[in-house]
Amino acid sequence: MSLPFPQTQTSPAEYTIGIVGLGLIGGCLALDLTRLGYSVYGVARRSETVTAALDAGMVTKVGCDLALMAETDLVFVCTPMALIVPTVQKLASYLPESTVVTDVGSIKGEVVAAATALWPNFVGGHPMAGKAESGLEAAETGLFCQRPYVVTPIETTVSTAVERVVAIATQLGSQVYTATPADHDQAVAAISHLPVMVSSSLLHTCLSEPNTQVKTLAQQLASSGFCDTSRVGGGNPELGTMMAQFNRSALLQALQRYRQQLNTAIDLIEAEQWDALEQRLSIAQQERPKYL
Amino acid sequence: MSLPFPQTQTSPAEYTIGIVGLGLIGGCLALDLTRLGYSVYGVARRSETVTAALDAGMVTKVGCDLALMAETDLVFVCTPMALIVPTVQKLASYLPESTVVTDVGSIKGEVVAAATALWPNFVGGHPMAGKAESGLEAAETGLFCQRPYVVTPIETTVSTAVERVVAIATQLGSQVYTATPADHDQAVAAISHLPVMVSSSLLHTCLSEPNTQVKTLAQQLASSGFCDTSRVGGGNPELGTMMAQFNRSALLQALQRYRQQLNTAIDLIEAEQWDALEQRLSIAQQERPKYL
Repeated sequence: MSLPFPQTQTSPAEYTIGIVGLGLIGGCLALDLTRLGYSVYGVARRSETVTAALDAGMVTKVGCDLALMAETDLVFVCTPMALIVPTVQKLASYLPESTVVTDVGSIKGEVVAAATALWPNFVGGHPMAGKAESGLEAAETGLFCQRPYVVTPIETTVSTAVERVVAIATQLGSQVYTATPADHDQAVAAISHLPVMVSSSLLHTCLSEPNTQVKTLAQQLASSGFCDTSRVGGGNPELGTMMAQFNRSALLQALQRYRQQLNTAIDLIEAEQWDALEQRLSIAQQERPKYL
Repeated sequence: MSLPFPQTQTSPAEYTIGIVGLGLIGGCLALDLTRLGYSVYGVARRSETVTAALDAGMVTKVGCDLALMAETDLVFVCTPMALIVPTVQKLASYLPESTVVTDVGSIKGEVVAAATALWPNFVGGHPMAGKAESGLEAAETGLFCQRPYVVTPIETTVSTAVERVVAIATQLGSQVYTATPADHDQAVAAISHLPVMVSSSLLHTCLSEPNTQVKTLAQQLASSGFCDTSRVGGGNPELGTMMAQFNRSALLQALQRYRQQLNTAIDLIEAEQWDALEQRLSIAQQERPKYL
């Protein structure tokens, strides 16, 4: 559900925000939050990143040591997916009990459960924004503006912590939604992770063409329709693998439901049921605008 | 293969070109060929189209009667797919033997065989250009410029007729390729018709989501990746059905090969073979530029 601007206003002047991991997302958060007037403390793994963040004026304090987070009111964990839970575990020994911890990972199920067990004041989050480039050097202001930001509380999540995260996401200009981690993961499996597998399989179908003349001709004739349909399948291989790894169960469910839909299309064409095929394509045409 | 500018130059002043069917493609051809200096004679089914073509100055002579084609040197049949062969059959009773007949249909196999049997001076062609809009009112100059134009001679095709069509396609600014009708149909099945089925099945997977909260959330969170991957699946249902109908055999082969590729992806994810999955996505990323 979409949330109104929250009651719990966060006053930037009296609030320090920590960011662990100064890559693209961490860097963009640092830029926006500094502009909003927050004190922003950053932690990076590499000293070059520390220097770059200071030079860019995107942080108030920055270093390589997690101990720096002891002075923060809220911490964004912006590490790669596999490091989110280990980072929360390490943070637990530095933070005052009142500090809210949130993450920006694109898959929520296991992460939220494990992180909440380690830190009761944890709230799962997923700002759905990105760029083709990665790393701090690609950071820019306003990346989250008018983009979805999903907050994924579970039964035991502290409601004031949720309100804090929602308040900040709203200040970033995001469209804030709340969902259970399971619902979030199922939704992103369908609209984000499934398309990668669907699209890369299309490319592999063309690559596996046994007739070399047909294969070459296909490359010469492919145009905007093929370009669009194959785009996400030709994206970052590490990211695609990570999605499958961390969202395996929801993605497999989506893939199996997709295979059923594909079989239906094949059956209609084999049986030459042209009216039914046209009806099916009409439904796709009519319903697509709901996903735009 | 890509062809050099042909030896057989067609001098527009002494050459009359007929166009049967003044829809988008016929209209665009009429505009370009008139600008190139040809006498262009058009035939439309509806008298309103006749008037509109005259008013637009895109034809020298125009009417509803195929007898008008008796004075032409070369005829483009620009009717819907299902009417190409019946139109060639009707034209046969009006044309002098020397007139070259070509079509602009997007599927070539059966059409070229049947039309050549009716008219030995027939050459199959497929200018791969289009617009979202259809009809004469959407016609514009230069639609074929820098777009592929596939000419599909068979063993019995008259070589001078092929040269004439290639010469005109070259004058339109197209990138001209020659291929057998079968190779053409297999290539467009893979890069044009398969993507429609792949993409519409993705939309139907989302539409068939049984959990209404997940379905709504997916609609809220879907972004550019989903938009691109679903675009051709949300296109004109009649066109999609027509592709399947006229290219059924090649499309079914492509769909079956696609299903194998999808199964490979599912198997890798089920077996948690992450290195192999990443390798697979890397190949897709590396090879995609060949189709752009």
